[in-house]
This record gives sequence, C-alpha cells and structure tokens, in this order.
Amino acid sequence: MNAELAGWTAPHVARIEAELARVMPEVTGPFREALLYPLRTGGKRIRPLLALAAAESVGGSAEAALDAAIALEMIHTYSLVHDDLPAMDDDDERRGRPTVHVVYGDATAILVGDGLLTAAFERVADSSALVKELARAAGPAGMVGGQYLDIKAQVRSLDELVHLHELKTGALIRAACRMGGFCGGADADQLVALTRYGAAVGLAFQVADDVLDADQDAGEGGPPSYVRLLGLEATRAEAHRLAVDAITAAQELPNPHVLVALARFTVERTV
Amino acid sequence: MNAELAGWTAPHVARIEAELARVMPEVTGPFREALLYPLRTGGKRIRPLLALAAAESVGGSAEAALDAAIALEMIHTYSLVHDDLPAMDDDDERRGRPTVHVVYGDATAILVGDGLLTAAFERVADSSALVKELARAAGPAGMVGGQYLDIKAQVRSLDELVHLHELKTGALIRAACRMGGFCGGADADQLVALTRYGAAVGLAFQVADDVLDADQDAGEGGPPSYVRLLGLEATRAEAHRLAVDAITAAQELPNPHVLVALARFTVERTV
Repeated sequence: MNAELAGWTAPHVARIEAELARVMPEVTGPFREALLYPLRTGGKRIRPLLALAAAESVGGSAEAALDAAIALEMIHTYSLVHDDLPAMDDDDERRGRPTVHVVYGDATAILVGDGLLTAAFERVADSSALVKELARAAGPAGMVGGQYLDIKAQVRSLDELVHLHELKTGALIRAACRMGGFCGGADADQLVALTRYGAAVGLAFQVADDVLDADQDAGEGGPPSYVRLLGLEATRAEAHRLAVDAITAAQELPNPHVLVALARFTVERTV
Repeated sequence: MNAELAGWTAPHVARIEAELARVMPEVTGPFREALLYPLRTGGKRIRPLLALAAAESVGGSAEAALDAAIALEMIHTYSLVHDDLPAMDDDDERRGRPTVHVVYGDATAILVGDGLLTAAFERVADSSALVKELARAAGPAGMVGGQYLDIKAQVRSLDELVHLHELKTGALIRAACRMGGFCGGADADQLVALTRYGAAVGLAFQVADDVLDADQDAGEGGPPSYVRLLGLEATRAEAHRLAVDAITAAQELPNPHVLVALARFTVERTV
C-alpha cells in the first residue's frame, strides 16, 4: 500500500474498528462476547473502506456511509463464521486466531452468525435503498447463492468460476461501492460508474488472491482457480485488466483518487 | 378452532401459502428447491395470521400486511431450520417430514437458513419501521438471544423461564402484531394495545404448549417448563390469565373479533 493510500485508510480503519467494538449495545453478557469476537479480526476491512471511499468519490462524507460500512462488515463477518463451521469448510483458524466455533462451540457459532446477519439490517433500517441493496447482494441470489455453488457445483470452466466469484464475493463488494454511493448522494450516472468499479474491483480481488495462493501452494491439489484454468501469467494479466477497468470507471467520478488507489493496491499485491 | 375463526383463517392461510410458494423468484434450480422445502410445512402460520389479523383489527386490509406476514414466516422458518441442525437440537423430523439437513445436508441447511433470513429483509425493505421491528425481534436481543439462552443457560426459576420464552418465541409473535398494526395504519394507542396483545398471546401460546407437552410426556425427563415449575393446574390457569389479558387488550381496538378468537384458540387447545 502506498503512503498516500495508507494515510487515507489508517484513520478510516480506526473509525470502523471503534464502531465495530460498540455495535449491538443492547446485548450484554457472554453472548455479546461471542458476537464481538469475530468482529475483532484485524482484517483489511475492504468492504467498509470501499463504502466510505465510494461516498467520498461522489462528494459525500465518509461519515454518511458509516452505518452502511458497519452493516457490510457485519454481513461479511457472519458469512466467515458460518463458512468456518465443521459442516461447511471446517476451518479451525482465521488470521491466526481460533475460529468462533472452536472457542464457543458450533451451536453458538451458528447463532453468532444469525445474530450478526440480523443486526446488520437493523443498522441500515432507515434507508430502504440500503436494505434492498444489502439483502440482494447477501441473499440467495448473491453471496449465499455463491456459497451454495461453492459447496455443490462442479466448476469446470472459466465462465462458471467467474459466476461463482461474482456471487460469492463480488456481489457484496459491488454492493459496498453502490451503498457508499447512495450515502454520498451519487446521481444515476455516478451509480453506474460505481457499479462498474465495484464489479471490476471485486473480481480483481479474487483473481489477485488466486495469484497469491498459487505462489504459496504451487503444485498442490485444491479448488479450481483462475491460475489452474488460465495459468499464472494470464491470471496476472487478467487482474491488471480488471484493475484498469475499475480505474477507468472511477475516473468518471468527481473525486476518484482513493478508489483508484484501492484498485491499484488490489493488483500490486500480485507482483 | 371454532367455525367463525376457521372461516377467517382458511382463505388467509391459502393466501399466505400461495405467496410462500413464489418467494425469491430470482433464485432457480436446486438451491430454490432447498429454500422452499421448509416453507411447505403445513404449519399453523400463526405469525403471518397474527400480522394480517392485526392489520384488520385497526381498520386496515390484510393485503396491506402481506409482505410483513411473509417476512415473519420466512424468519420463523429459518430459525427452525437452524434449530434442527445436529449442532443445535439435532431433530430429524418436523411435522412428520425429514428436516432440511436430513434431506439436503448440513451445509445446505445452514445456507437455506441464511438465505431465508436475508430474503425476509428484502421483502419488507420498503418500510423502515418493519425492518427495524423485525430485526430487533429476530436479532441478538430477541429471538436469536433466546436461542442462545436456550442452549446455554440453566433455567431455574419461573422468571428465567418467562424471560427465555419472551425472547425465543415471544419477541417475534409480538412483532407480528405490531408489524400488522403498522401496515394497517394503527395510531399510537392502538400500537400500545397490539403490543400488549402480542406479548400476552405469545406467552400464552408457549404456556399452552407446555400444557400439551405435559399431557403427552407426563413423567419423562426434559427441559424446564411451566408445568414442571408451577404444576399442571396452575399452568393451565396461567394460560387462561394470559389469554384474558390478550383479549382485554384487543378489545381496545376497533375490530377485535379475529384477535380475540385467536387468543381464545390458544388456550382452548389446552382443555
């Protein structure tokens, strides 16, 4: 991450972390501890950052998109908690910490996920546009549908892989950009640009992750990936093509600098 | 159920069933089948019926509360799907049919629950009041919090049992009445009456269920219940007291007949 982008993200990440630490004030005791545990990940907070950056890109304030940003991170976090369950991916660790079901048990992990998912909608309840966008992106025709494809479908072609990622991770990242746009007061043309930016950057992230994973696990068996289907060089080229597409879309906006830097950061990780 | 109440419920249940059969039209294929499977239960549809009846009780149309009713039943259904999982109550059958995880596997059952929960909020997205009410009632300070108490807490007193039921089942039933009221155009006083009605009828249902369970499982070990804590006769008396409280609240409304009949039906099951 370059110094200019880091200078923007540091205070915004701090703001997001502070808000995440005090969500759901009405819940107390041991259940509150379990609910907050997966929110304290030290993750990149890409989705909330994109929402805040999108709001600023159209001339709004980051603060106006804060509720949307928090709701997006709660949804992303619930999906990881459920994804890590023994019945799903059965992951014992995430970012070096034991996963929720390891610490609190499977039943509590299911309820933590359900609780975060439900509370996310309360957080954006005042805006019909945000509720609709979030529900569509996270629901059975979006992220949850992508999870279903991931556990069930045989991905054999690049088209099928792109479709899987568009649902599983792309839908929520695209929604982050659109929701930030709503909060920042985007007009219809700006929303179109943010939608194109979000779709490209979401896929770019996934493609770049595949490059990073290929560098780490070269030769091992594993799930289908861009690298397996396209090869490493063509995958790296595809990540760049997507980043350029995202940057081109961002440059239609009045204040594109952070979105452009975030798109660059996506692919810089791969070189 | 008396003939007058049955005459009201039959067409309204038919309307609810028809809507439930066509929710989430954008989702197709095997995931759609899994999502719709638990919605076809032949259950009593108490929550959506209460929402429709509450709308009519304040002079609104049942049709105005239909989206709220469907969202409530989707939330209730997701909670049953997750509750039945091996990691939770591990139930193989519900109403004589194999549960979702038995038919489709645990991973799909988790995603079916997540999908129904998320799509429920899309259904009521146009109304901030409905989203807020539903999220609070179903979330960590409501139904999900009650589920957590149910799997974790040692219930030793009547107060603790009442608190558990107020969260686990009461909050959503109360929300059904209030949401119906919002949709029917209730004024502030009418909302107070519907809230009192909903709280009383929600608890009455649970108390009455305990009486029915006690008749069926007399002498067996099991979870704490009103019957175990109060004895059968005192529990039956408590169900009646709650029904009278619900009926008294309903009678403050312009068109209370169906709500009164539903409250009576609650306790008639126990004698």
